[in-house]
Amino acid sequence: MAAAALLLGAGLLLGRALLGAEAAPRPPNLVLLLMDDMGWGDLGVFGEPSRETPHLDRMAAEGMLFPNFYTANPLCSPSRAALLTGRLPIRNGFYTTNGHARNAYTPQEIVGGIPDSEFLLPELLKKAGYVNKIVGKWHLGHRPQFHPLKHGFDEWFGSPNCHFGPYDNKAKPNIPVYRNWEMVGRFFEDFPINLKTGEANLTQIYLKEALDFIKKQQTHQQPFFLYWAIDATHAPVYASESFLGTSQRGRYGDAVREIDDSIGKILKLLQDLGIQENTFVFFTSDNGAALISSPNEGGSNGPFLCGKQTTFEGGMREPAIAWWPGHIPAGQVSQQLGSVMDLFSTSLSLAGLKPPSDRKIDGIDLLPVFVQGGLIDRSIFYYRGDEMMAVRVGQYKAHYWTWSNSWEQFSQGIDFCPGQNVSGVTTHNQEEHTKLPLLFHLGRDPGEKYPISVSSLEYQNALLRISPIVEEHKRTMIPAEPQLNVCNPAVMNWAPAGCEKLGRCLTPPESEPKKCFWPH
Amino acid sequence: MAAAALLLGAGLLLGRALLGAEAAPRPPNLVLLLMDDMGWGDLGVFGEPSRETPHLDRMAAEGMLFPNFYTANPLCSPSRAALLTGRLPIRNGFYTTNGHARNAYTPQEIVGGIPDSEFLLPELLKKAGYVNKIVGKWHLGHRPQFHPLKHGFDEWFGSPNCHFGPYDNKAKPNIPVYRNWEMVGRFFEDFPINLKTGEANLTQIYLKEALDFIKKQQTHQQPFFLYWAIDATHAPVYASESFLGTSQRGRYGDAVREIDDSIGKILKLLQDLGIQENTFVFFTSDNGAALISSPNEGGSNGPFLCGKQTTFEGGMREPAIAWWPGHIPAGQVSQQLGSVMDLFSTSLSLAGLKPPSDRKIDGIDLLPVFVQGGLIDRSIFYYRGDEMMAVRVGQYKAHYWTWSNSWEQFSQGIDFCPGQNVSGVTTHNQEEHTKLPLLFHLGRDPGEKYPISVSSLEYQNALLRISPIVEEHKRTMIPAEPQLNVCNPAVMNWAPAGCEKLGRCLTPPESEPKKCFWPH
Repeated sequence: MAAAALLLGAGLLLGRALLGAEAAPRPPNLVLLLMDDMGWGDLGVFGEPSRETPHLDRMAAEGMLFPNFYTANPLCSPSRAALLTGRLPIRNGFYTTNGHARNAYTPQEIVGGIPDSEFLLPELLKKAGYVNKIVGKWHLGHRPQFHPLKHGFDEWFGSPNCHFGPYDNKAKPNIPVYRNWEMVGRFFEDFPINLKTGEANLTQIYLKEALDFIKKQQTHQQPFFLYWAIDATHAPVYASESFLGTSQRGRYGDAVREIDDSIGKILKLLQDLGIQENTFVFFTSDNGAALISSPNEGGSNGPFLCGKQTTFEGGMREPAIAWWPGHIPAGQVSQQLGSVMDLFSTSLSLAGLKPPSDRKIDGIDLLPVFVQGGLIDRSIFYYRGDEMMAVRVGQYKAHYWTWSNSWEQFSQGIDFCPGQNVSGVTTHNQEEHTKLPLLFHLGRDPGEKYPISVSSLEYQNALLRISPIVEEHKRTMIPAEPQLNVCNPAVMNWAPAGCEKLGRCLTPPESEPKKCFWPH
Repeated sequence: MAAAALLLGAGLLLGRALLGAEAAPRPPNLVLLLMDDMGWGDLGVFGEPSRETPHLDRMAAEGMLFPNFYTANPLCSPSRAALLTGRLPIRNGFYTTNGHARNAYTPQEIVGGIPDSEFLLPELLKKAGYVNKIVGKWHLGHRPQFHPLKHGFDEWFGSPNCHFGPYDNKAKPNIPVYRNWEMVGRFFEDFPINLKTGEANLTQIYLKEALDFIKKQQTHQQPFFLYWAIDATHAPVYASESFLGTSQRGRYGDAVREIDDSIGKILKLLQDLGIQENTFVFFTSDNGAALISSPNEGGSNGPFLCGKQTTFEGGMREPAIAWWPGHIPAGQVSQQLGSVMDLFSTSLSLAGLKPPSDRKIDGIDLLPVFVQGGLIDRSIFYYRGDEMMAVRVGQYKAHYWTWSNSWEQFSQGIDFCPGQNVSGVTTHNQEEHTKLPLLFHLGRDPGEKYPISVSSLEYQNALLRISPIVEEHKRTMIPAEPQLNVCNPAVMNWAPAGCEKLGRCLTPPESEPKKCFWPH
């Protein structure tokens, strides 16, 4: 009996050691809920008038809301590359030099992708024993060397590119959907999206992937990192049958409702499993709402100027909520200036890891903000392609370049600022203001409508503070080799791994590398 | 002893009868917190990015939020006349026919005011034993016959007109401040407002008036109606010294913070006195934020189009919160279409009174919505002066006329839609659309940017629903005699009651009645 008790005791001790409850506390699980093209103004808690996000609103009420949270680029691929590397796209290569200040991403014909030299968050988390899964959109390159399982993820269910289509598999193949290393089908073929009705059950599939992964990891007793990068709010916007037509906001709202419902289920599972206090959850989006797709398939940037593709607030300020019961006090609003790149640094910190010391990391560790409610002094740099367009320091935002899009594109009906026109600000030429930046006070003027007079004392004082920060940033900036310059139809998803098994390999055309054309 | 006990018992019984705890329950106290030019987007709970309204946000969390609540006119006087009569300004006379679709109010030279034939809420509440106090801006006429104490209020501390000035008391007198029947001083003279620094302690005075009245009524054991119509957020915007410079939003934000703090104190007093469950509190504003005063002295209309003076959503959709612990469940959001005129009908209902049956009342009783969470089918009519500009039915809004302001005014820099320009919508000519109204779906398109195609089935179906409502409205409309047509410098506040005692009577000029000029 005594020996048995001793053994049992040792067993408990061993179990505890495995759990890390005493010696080295087990690091928390990490869940990043990354939305696609969702805008700052799309959540009830951020003032969406229809108030159709009860679960996200409750997540905010139970956690910490960040009204001043930014992406690193107003387009999906570079934003995601920045999140996973903690570095500005100009440092990790996710930009183009084919034109000045052009947004670039990873369409099917892109040759480049995330360089091997970059450390991705999941790669680093492995050192702390994390099991990493990505559900949804990768968008960091689709050629074999860029596969997420080659960059630290252990599991993947999702797609390498946007769910555009349908294609005829002749001029362009349909986008593949992967489970881990291999394609398991293609959008519009095996994973239908009805462009007419907006019906697709992908969010339900992505939800199941998330829930199953969490349950599985829980029984395995290993810390996990779930990167839930779903895309229902990116055009073509979709929702499941049971959500279609349920929103006051039309199809876009249907997608938001389904996502809100799904996030409610994810949080509930964490609570049901009793691991909510050991799981750090963060909700945000990759860039501002795509107003070009409004009103049916685009979201809302609330009171902010313009949307996706631009470096105005509407293009780069994101909804953001942190949730970690027992650690983050409920019902907080933080005025911390945050960035998706901070999720890299903060996740490492939560895992007990240090960020790489051999390179510049732009993200900062927000853990003190989450847990102690402090504020960390930092600046936000607004990049579009190879150009630093603007910087935010405190409440001041200085624009060194302004551009919505070209007159040519605008005259074709492509409008990133529908219904909005601020003279000298939403310019259709690339306007340089590097000598005398356009200055706004985002507290009084969140909509960037009233440039502060260059002759005012306020302007001069603000610039005295901002200019050295910008000079230091530019002086120490070492741009990476741009990865998004070259396109080639031969690299499209003709024959992804696994196509043989499915008998679905397509024949690529002749290689014809050329400069990618980036109009915005 | 037995006799004493009996007497004591009788006393308790009598006390209970007075309290109305058994036989006829004592009706709840009514507190209407009416803001001046505060916009829908000015509260944290409605998405203001700086999140500086913790008390109002908590009021919403403890009560019911209304994201679809409207004023009856995008200007202060008619809005307030509508609130207190439950009737559209065109029915109660608070409009002008000097020009088509012109906003009119009660400047110092106005001859008219609220007609004696109108029943005001406080007059009616008297029948149920209410003691009524107005604190702040009256704005229903300043000549003796229009005095609030002649229209049902028992007490007044405040002013009859806007706090414009300072004047020289020659061409124009400064605006008087009244305590009950008599002037106790004038703005800028006895009640200083520093236009340069923005300092004025008026909100603190108005707060003290509210707190003192509540305390006094509580000891008197009578139900009360407090109409707290403060004006710190109307230009010239002001705040007390201790609030100046505390907001991230500049002077306007300082004013909001002081108001938020004050409302927190009012709610706390109700709780401290233990009467929160017997006091119905409603917070709203008289019209949309005055964007012409932005960014320093104008608020935010969130995602909505234009502001004060216009019948776009930014001009007429208001922040609104109902709070009545123990009766209104906490944390609710209601999609009910509401109007300031409903505060008339709902207040009567709460007091156990019926609205007058000899006239059309536009307000509806929202009590079932507050208490049971239902939704009542109703339409919202958007008036500008003598013209029904638009109507909302469900999620659809049909514009029969569009106008921001005239080219002439616009060219002088008067812009009601700064940074916004929706072609064919924010028109600078009065555009008639009575044959084919401009139709918007406010769920998908709260910013009124995407008119629905007249050839679509959606348009046709919506109009089938809207047209009969508009026809019925127009067919049965009997406009009152307009009260805001005639101006006369002789009627200004030269010698308000009480001026003799103060030795501060001024001599009016010769009577010179003329048509008032209403440019908007």
